[in-house]
Amino acid sequence: MKRVRFRDSAGNVRGGRWTVEDGEPVVTAAAGPYGRIAFGDESYSPEEVEVLPPCEPTKIVCVGLNYADHAEETGKDIPDRPMLFLKPPNTVASHNSTVTLLPDKERIDFEAELGVVIGEQCKNVTAKGAEDVIAGYTCVNDLSNRDDQRQEQNWVRGKAFDNACPIGPLVATPEHVPEDATIESRVNGETRQSSSRDNFIFSIPELIEEITSYMTLEPGDVISTGTPSGVGPLENGDRVEIEVEGVGTLSHTVRIP
Amino acid sequence: MKRVRFRDSAGNVRGGRWTVEDGEPVVTAAAGPYGRIAFGDESYSPEEVEVLPPCEPTKIVCVGLNYADHAEETGKDIPDRPMLFLKPPNTVASHNSTVTLLPDKERIDFEAELGVVIGEQCKNVTAKGAEDVIAGYTCVNDLSNRDDQRQEQNWVRGKAFDNACPIGPLVATPEHVPEDATIESRVNGETRQSSSRDNFIFSIPELIEEITSYMTLEPGDVISTGTPSGVGPLENGDRVEIEVEGVGTLSHTVRIP
Repeated sequence: MKRVRFRDSAGNVRGGRWTVEDGEPVVTAAAGPYGRIAFGDESYSPEEVEVLPPCEPTKIVCVGLNYADHAEETGKDIPDRPMLFLKPPNTVASHNSTVTLLPDKERIDFEAELGVVIGEQCKNVTAKGAEDVIAGYTCVNDLSNRDDQRQEQNWVRGKAFDNACPIGPLVATPEHVPEDATIESRVNGETRQSSSRDNFIFSIPELIEEITSYMTLEPGDVISTGTPSGVGPLENGDRVEIEVEGVGTLSHTVRIP
Repeated sequence: MKRVRFRDSAGNVRGGRWTVEDGEPVVTAAAGPYGRIAFGDESYSPEEVEVLPPCEPTKIVCVGLNYADHAEETGKDIPDRPMLFLKPPNTVASHNSTVTLLPDKERIDFEAELGVVIGEQCKNVTAKGAEDVIAGYTCVNDLSNRDDQRQEQNWVRGKAFDNACPIGPLVATPEHVPEDATIESRVNGETRQSSSRDNFIFSIPELIEEITSYMTLEPGDVISTGTPSGVGPLENGDRVEIEVEGVGTLSHTVRIP
């Protein structure tokens, strides 16, 4: 199942299903979105409606340095437990949106990530039981303001500014996403990051066990699982695509005022 | 005006007003709460109902090192801009509750703070206009797990664990809280911290200007303005009171499993 939230032509927020014909990509930026959005007895082209963030997180728990190659790229040691940071709800931005970033910064980077969407309220989940609390997977762009991140103990200005977390376009239930799913970013059509879920340092069940030993997760909360090597700066007008195999492609443009 | 959220005997969540007779403290742990909670044509003793967190924050933006004496106590330099960190909604806990903390930690500290409750959605607020976005003030206990905080880049395990933010019992509109309001903590009746709002390094309007230059704040969001010197560890069974002059006293007990 691929679930999507959208606003219909009457302005109502709906939870629909994204239906894709065999062999079609879920969305492509060049040709516009593929597939249809179904709700009740109506069906829409994704261009006819406003695609909303596919879930409403109370918090996004992000993992730093979860690919050995990105740890190397940033000159950091591989951590012995997951390095965590937070993005609050003000960071959420939609598929197909224009994302306005902070003015006057030297460098704001894209970071392609696989997002785990939580399906039920949960605490103290074991890695073995983690599958039961996962609603599905989505695409996340963990936008990062390096100017401030470098100077801060806690990455609030660096990671929690408005629109710092484009997410979507949908939540795909786990059977759609292979264990070695590809995670990719493209900027203006050029591939910039490409890695696979089987390069994770900490697996998704391990992350859920560790995080829920400290925090209750709510339905719609997101764990963003870290980014592979190849991150880089964005410029005004750039078009970013984040693709997770089995989910589809999150696409947005960038505006720097 | 002093506003309180509570659950009545039928289980309904209500927004009431806390009415106090002249000269009475708002709440005291020893003698039980003073004052009455009024809603519609009913009025209750605070002991008859379940007092809830007085607001429902989507995020709590906390300020580190905002009193020169606490900066000294922790051996840090006075920062040239506010040091920020985040507590997500899972950290919220109520007045008069038993707060279960993390097991197996050497040291979890109390930190008395004045909380600013936001009254409207806002972004890019100037210090001069900050007054207009403040709903009022409340008491916050910024519970801090030092074991993990010392080891983390971002204080997620250290500051964002469940129940790490007891808050309440009410929101007092600004005219109740003097510019030099006292902020105090007591543990088992013994005063442990006592300072004043006029010892802030960054004023509340300066904090609002800085934070909203990065983040949209929502109604009910809280800015917790930092803690004075005197923080210390808690033990199982301790009773903590956080008093802000003009607001009242937040009181809770501690359970360490």
